[in-house]
Amino acid sequence: MQIAMIDDKIVPAEELEPAYLDRGVYFGDGVYEVVRSYDGKIFALQEHLQRFARSLAAIEITGVDIDRIRSCVRKAFDAAGISNAKIYFHITRGSAPRSHTWENDLKPNFFLTVTELPDDTELKIKGIEVSTHPDWRWKRSDIKSLNLLPNVLARADAATKGCEEAILVDEAGLITEGAGSAFFAVSGQTLQTAPLTANILASITRKFAIEAGKNIGLDIIEKSFTPQHANRADELIIAVTTKDIVPVVKFDGKSIADGKPGKYTKLLMQEFRSFI
Amino acid sequence: MQIAMIDDKIVPAEELEPAYLDRGVYFGDGVYEVVRSYDGKIFALQEHLQRFARSLAAIEITGVDIDRIRSCVRKAFDAAGISNAKIYFHITRGSAPRSHTWENDLKPNFFLTVTELPDDTELKIKGIEVSTHPDWRWKRSDIKSLNLLPNVLARADAATKGCEEAILVDEAGLITEGAGSAFFAVSGQTLQTAPLTANILASITRKFAIEAGKNIGLDIIEKSFTPQHANRADELIIAVTTKDIVPVVKFDGKSIADGKPGKYTKLLMQEFRSFI
Repeated sequence: MQIAMIDDKIVPAEELEPAYLDRGVYFGDGVYEVVRSYDGKIFALQEHLQRFARSLAAIEITGVDIDRIRSCVRKAFDAAGISNAKIYFHITRGSAPRSHTWENDLKPNFFLTVTELPDDTELKIKGIEVSTHPDWRWKRSDIKSLNLLPNVLARADAATKGCEEAILVDEAGLITEGAGSAFFAVSGQTLQTAPLTANILASITRKFAIEAGKNIGLDIIEKSFTPQHANRADELIIAVTTKDIVPVVKFDGKSIADGKPGKYTKLLMQEFRSFI
Repeated sequence: MQIAMIDDKIVPAEELEPAYLDRGVYFGDGVYEVVRSYDGKIFALQEHLQRFARSLAAIEITGVDIDRIRSCVRKAFDAAGISNAKIYFHITRGSAPRSHTWENDLKPNFFLTVTELPDDTELKIKGIEVSTHPDWRWKRSDIKSLNLLPNVLARADAATKGCEEAILVDEAGLITEGAGSAFFAVSGQTLQTAPLTANILASITRKFAIEAGKNIGLDIIEKSFTPQHANRADELIIAVTTKDIVPVVKFDGKSIADGKPGKYTKLLMQEFRSFI
């Protein structure tokens, strides 16, 4: 590369900051995690780091020391001094002039932010509205990658409908998961969610939600279901790291049951607290 | 966001450069184009700018003045002073703390590079080898977005097989296109390529290759075909902005015809020159 231009300013190649050559921007060539803390304690960091290591391996980013990432996360969390924090971090393959293939000597870029989480008490009391959107994502949604444009577009569509989350529906007409959450239906004594084979992320909050479901005596069904099934469910919930379990009270404009968080949802939220 | 960390260095939120808050990195929330010049003249800039405008609209990035982009491209190209240049440019939705949804007052980020193209004479004389890879891309590959991780992984797989390009095969077993190119087969008097409805990019070089095919008397068939069909073809080619038409002489390890660029391929390369 000879020259670059940032907005309308010409920059000689040699003066370009590495951030402008990040393969994260050119290709979304990186993976990320979001962890949170409850009252000063990071939740499930080990599980998130294990998944992070798996994502890195899946896209062949090598040479990342997970113990070092763990200590960076702890160091930043301690420095921020926030009790209920969202910690976001990603690693990209590195910075280099744009080329699909990469040189093996690239140094991965690590980036992390710590943000205070808003209080979610009211959200959990009132519940949220969701709307469906076609699942446009790639076929490796098991990898927590930076290729999130389909999620962004689905969430934007939901927002225009006054909804907090988009529930993605695949070409077979089956719900996969939310744009940024796992999705569950409670019908009778069952807690149902799509299986991990349905091109979804192995969500850690999903795993704990299933655990909570078992603990309160629900039968767990990992089988995909349709929006019609969701509409007829007794209760709906999403599960997401930053808010754990959140009641869904409206689905595509239709109230679920009496439009208020159901009894199992409340029990699940309560049971989840026991894991923290 | 309260603090950030770049590698292992803590950075207060207010000191963070906008490049680290680019939605291009977090989400691949942007679109791009690649144009080239031949002997000091940019080729098909208008077509590329039209497609760029279409991509921007498709992901709802508004307020971009295409005339201003055109003048930036020309200004940077003139400043670089390279006869045979590759001009890459992208626009992301802007820089802001990470959130799937965005505020309407975001200012899009424009970034461009000008690079000298390597001489491709030998490549065109000898041809290239390609290998197949599952098409893992999202369902809106008609948008030229920065979500390119599936393309990167496919190209990396091809590289390990000593191939220059990965030819993507969808779940129905049909070839869509290359990881960074359009793909064609010549059989008898026909030039065949996947239709634009097959979740492929409306490649500009593809359009000119079809035009060239018509001009040299080939029948054009826009219909998807299988790797088996490709293996039995008389000639194979890829079409890509930076190199226009390139002969493919080996497909998944098997030589095509006598393993040398065929007569129609040569005529197509020659005819393409007449457009420049």
